[in-house]
Amino acid sequence: MRLGAFFNPTGHHVASWRHPDAQADAGVNFAHYVELAQTAERGKFDFVFFADNVNVREARPEALSRSAQYIANFEPLTLMAGLAAVTRRIGFVSTASTSWNEPYNIARKFASLDHISGGRVAWNIVTSSVDGEARNFGRDRIEDHALRYERAREFTHVVCDLWDSWADDAFLRDKESGLFFDPAKVRPLDHRGRFYSVAGPLNVPRPPQGHPVLVQAGSSNDGRAFAAEFAEAVFGNPLTIEWAQGYYADLKQRAATFGRAPESILIMPGISTYVGRTAKEAQELYDEMQARVDPVVGIEMLSAVLGVDVSGYPIDGPLPELDRSHVGSQASFDNWTELARNEKLSIRELCLRVVGARGKSVIVGSAVQIADHMQTWFENGAADGFNIMAPYLPGQHDAFVDLVIPELQERGIFRTEYEGTTLRENLGLARPERKPRREAAHV
Amino acid sequence: MRLGAFFNPTGHHVASWRHPDAQADAGVNFAHYVELAQTAERGKFDFVFFADNVNVREARPEALSRSAQYIANFEPLTLMAGLAAVTRRIGFVSTASTSWNEPYNIARKFASLDHISGGRVAWNIVTSSVDGEARNFGRDRIEDHALRYERAREFTHVVCDLWDSWADDAFLRDKESGLFFDPAKVRPLDHRGRFYSVAGPLNVPRPPQGHPVLVQAGSSNDGRAFAAEFAEAVFGNPLTIEWAQGYYADLKQRAATFGRAPESILIMPGISTYVGRTAKEAQELYDEMQARVDPVVGIEMLSAVLGVDVSGYPIDGPLPELDRSHVGSQASFDNWTELARNEKLSIRELCLRVVGARGKSVIVGSAVQIADHMQTWFENGAADGFNIMAPYLPGQHDAFVDLVIPELQERGIFRTEYEGTTLRENLGLARPERKPRREAAHV
Repeated sequence: MRLGAFFNPTGHHVASWRHPDAQADAGVNFAHYVELAQTAERGKFDFVFFADNVNVREARPEALSRSAQYIANFEPLTLMAGLAAVTRRIGFVSTASTSWNEPYNIARKFASLDHISGGRVAWNIVTSSVDGEARNFGRDRIEDHALRYERAREFTHVVCDLWDSWADDAFLRDKESGLFFDPAKVRPLDHRGRFYSVAGPLNVPRPPQGHPVLVQAGSSNDGRAFAAEFAEAVFGNPLTIEWAQGYYADLKQRAATFGRAPESILIMPGISTYVGRTAKEAQELYDEMQARVDPVVGIEMLSAVLGVDVSGYPIDGPLPELDRSHVGSQASFDNWTELARNEKLSIRELCLRVVGARGKSVIVGSAVQIADHMQTWFENGAADGFNIMAPYLPGQHDAFVDLVIPELQERGIFRTEYEGTTLRENLGLARPERKPRREAAHV
Repeated sequence: MRLGAFFNPTGHHVASWRHPDAQADAGVNFAHYVELAQTAERGKFDFVFFADNVNVREARPEALSRSAQYIANFEPLTLMAGLAAVTRRIGFVSTASTSWNEPYNIARKFASLDHISGGRVAWNIVTSSVDGEARNFGRDRIEDHALRYERAREFTHVVCDLWDSWADDAFLRDKESGLFFDPAKVRPLDHRGRFYSVAGPLNVPRPPQGHPVLVQAGSSNDGRAFAAEFAEAVFGNPLTIEWAQGYYADLKQRAATFGRAPESILIMPGISTYVGRTAKEAQELYDEMQARVDPVVGIEMLSAVLGVDVSGYPIDGPLPELDRSHVGSQASFDNWTELARNEKLSIRELCLRVVGARGKSVIVGSAVQIADHMQTWFENGAADGFNIMAPYLPGQHDAFVDLVIPELQERGIFRTEYEGTTLRENLGLARPERKPRREAAHV
């Protein structure tokens, strides 16, 4: 079983920062992240994982100012470089968008990070889906979905080819003869595509892992097609085992059409785990976290999810009939309004359902219960591993490492020592060969 | 006196990597840089300084493959983040080009680095002057000189204003009341300029230094005007004290026209120091370094400097009459051909003059002699400090710290302990106040 630790600065729960033991200034507290990464390494996690956003989340000021997520934090590539310097075995997955970067810069930064870390980094490839980000980069809105993925595809090909600029053994550094590198072992790219023209070669030697590991979170059809072609680890968000099994089978099958073996694409759903020494303690923690949700934040998030402003209705009353004709995602609208109707939830109760989980799978229980859940998914074609989203930090990350990891190790389904020195070796992913020149011409 | 340690990976001399004690794989050897940074910190240097280039230097393969500089190295921002994690007091200056980046990304990365390092970073602002870089970013050639500086000016204003998005005390993180930040203490940018449109605000809290320190190396008229407006430390390349004094006076005077005090812009020329325990030992080192210059590399570099290919002439013969009608810089051509004629230098001898110094001031001597030179410049209006360019690494960096620094300290012109915890405090630069909103509208 592969395990990643996915960190929002103060934790995954929307009210995480208000927990008495949460590190409320986590967003720019480097020592906090050093502690998290070193704890993850002690727990033998494969990697820690940083999401990213390139704007301050947009919301009404009175709601925004009462939440901590996607406001103001470290930039993840610089954070990851700093953490690599104070750890030895843990991997680092960091998000970078194909929308607001140049492929040469991204290829270079991840290659550099792979050298700094001794082969422990991965790139989580995203396309930006928020107009607020576009406005920080000279545009009014984002490109449409299909175009974003076409761009991402060319971008990723260029990055991978840049990583192959130099042969692994290109640098001789022969002081006697004066030959620094073998000129037959470097090549330009001379890429001229639809979106990018890049001459190359990259000005960083080939990364220790050949290519840093490629990570993605595709759920749409475009996203799944992209994952099938490129992704070596997929961060999915299934809510039920049935859905997860279908997703798992679909991605492995799609990958096969690209000639890829099933074990070359790892499916690692995100789960938010509330760990207690007992089931009761875990439930108390969950209830306590939910009780701290600020109604102003909850209503704002519910309105965003529904696509309709519900701030004008009595919070303890039922959800009224709403006009769905202008909502962004009718599926999401129907989902949540149906739930509210079926379970007769007040607006406040519906808020808690929506924001508590933040759309992710939530597991509340003792170490044994959580390990049972994970083992069931792992052994029944629903997951190759998980991304663990601790509800608040550092406390619940510590609890997972101290309580759940030993339980998984005892069952023989999680490592007790790292298998290798690179992230690829630990994930069991092959090191990519440098492609011959002619194959590099594509897109 | 302020001191920076300027690092090319293997050292400043063109043949540095061939020295028996040089770290030939320095470009991607993180442990090497950790050692350099920690030695610089032991020596109480203000900062270490990384240049940058965003392409593999262009040259004939047989020459390129025999040189180590500007080939393939760490990307400096990721390197700097890693080094910040394993040092406590030393500052870091890193180059980033206004030509191939977005201001939001640069503002964000340097703000993040400033938080990671506890206020120890500086941005060396450059405009890219090489067509080879342009071709990695979808263009055939660079913009012309004046346009590059206009772009850089708007870019830098946007970055500084983004750093002022949040008040220093914007984040309350009040767990009881649930107020995470004070919405009155953040503002958007809403910048719409000639080159950039950036909505803001920045998604990183205000940096510990207010603004990371701004560094620049302007020598042209455009460059000096830019430095006078923005730069807090200037990395110049004067070859004589007379020229340095004129440059020093000119920049301080130009800065005054922007209402800036003389001490708010530090002039720190680059000098390449060959340190020996005796003058004889230093001279032997210099001769030894020069003897390792590969003629193929020398001829290629001389041809580049002259703007004329001289590879077809006998290397031990005199420089023939050359056609200057197509050269890029006639001043440079005239300079070097005149030197060759006056001193009756062979092509090989001229090569060594050109490539050994790499256009920088070279000082060869004992600690006393080097300190004498530095003190003379420092006390006669030619420099507020220096960027020390060790000819090979780590040996000559160690020698500077072990031999020259104590000599400077004994003379009372260099610190024996850091004055503060931030780079600004150590450099004696004021922390910028956050500008009121209305002043932020400019360009």
